[in-house]
Amino acid sequence: MRLLEEGVPLAEISIERVARIAGVGKATIYRRWSGREELFCDVMRTAEPPDPELPGTSMRDDLIVILETLRHRGLASRSSAIMHNVYAQMKSSPKLWKVYHAAVIEPRRLLTLDVLRRGQANGEFRADVDVELANDLFVGPMLVRAVIRPDAGLEEGLSERIVDTVLAGLGPTAR
Amino acid sequence: MRLLEEGVPLAEISIERVARIAGVGKATIYRRWSGREELFCDVMRTAEPPDPELPGTSMRDDLIVILETLRHRGLASRSSAIMHNVYAQMKSSPKLWKVYHAAVIEPRRLLTLDVLRRGQANGEFRADVDVELANDLFVGPMLVRAVIRPDAGLEEGLSERIVDTVLAGLGPTAR
Repeated sequence: MRLLEEGVPLAEISIERVARIAGVGKATIYRRWSGREELFCDVMRTAEPPDPELPGTSMRDDLIVILETLRHRGLASRSSAIMHNVYAQMKSSPKLWKVYHAAVIEPRRLLTLDVLRRGQANGEFRADVDVELANDLFVGPMLVRAVIRPDAGLEEGLSERIVDTVLAGLGPTAR
Repeated sequence: MRLLEEGVPLAEISIERVARIAGVGKATIYRRWSGREELFCDVMRTAEPPDPELPGTSMRDDLIVILETLRHRGLASRSSAIMHNVYAQMKSSPKLWKVYHAAVIEPRRLLTLDVLRRGQANGEFRADVDVELANDLFVGPMLVRAVIRPDAGLEEGLSERIVDTVLAGLGPTAR
């Protein structure tokens, strides 16, 4: 984190350098992380707001908590130059992105798919729609604002609006 | 494009270098582009599938064409290491991203907002939903797959499924 705060690019941060700054041997680092990629993933995870506890009261409530976490992560990465830069650098390294994706993004996606399957079982959500598609319909609008459009609104109440509008539908006969 | 194909990072591509490779003077380059950022935007635009002609037959048809373009751009950037890298490098330079956003992304967003406003006027889409939110509901799911999740499906028919599912809604009483 100190190196990143000093603006050192990810590509120039080696395990050796981290060990030197931390005042420990390389073996100490390798005892906990198998490589640079795994170490950076944990740095990002530490910098990001933590994964949510789901209330489990309904699919709608759980989805709102999941979207709220994405909204807060978006706000955090806008206000933190470090998070923003590390994220962008991760994206430009396919190897690093793959590790981050497998370690951080994919478990969150699986969590959301579970919430959707429970909702389908409860009758909160149409059984004829694929859960993978439904996941992207709920999560996509928030991610576009949080990750792709730096000036887009991430206002309070957005999570509820997305969930309720996707449930109700946009067509004139929907709702 | 030749420099990018050779793997030269964007940060090392100056107007001087482009002029030298192209065998022209710097003034010739500056006659057409006001700076590096503007030049890179045009390079990206040339590499990407072109902006769509909208059929104008209905909001649904126009939205499907817009999403199809995003889907084809996603497929193109997966298959083109150059596009993928340039995009990632652009994202990691706030100045460059801002120019790209204003020159390329924002006009597309405005085009989609027009389509949605026409749909609202036609009664194809509920008048009580904000068009900015509706834009993200239609476009977000495709962008998540095209830009954020490198392994997500971008199969044929996805655009229609997204548009029709967002119109119908996911709730049990929707449709």
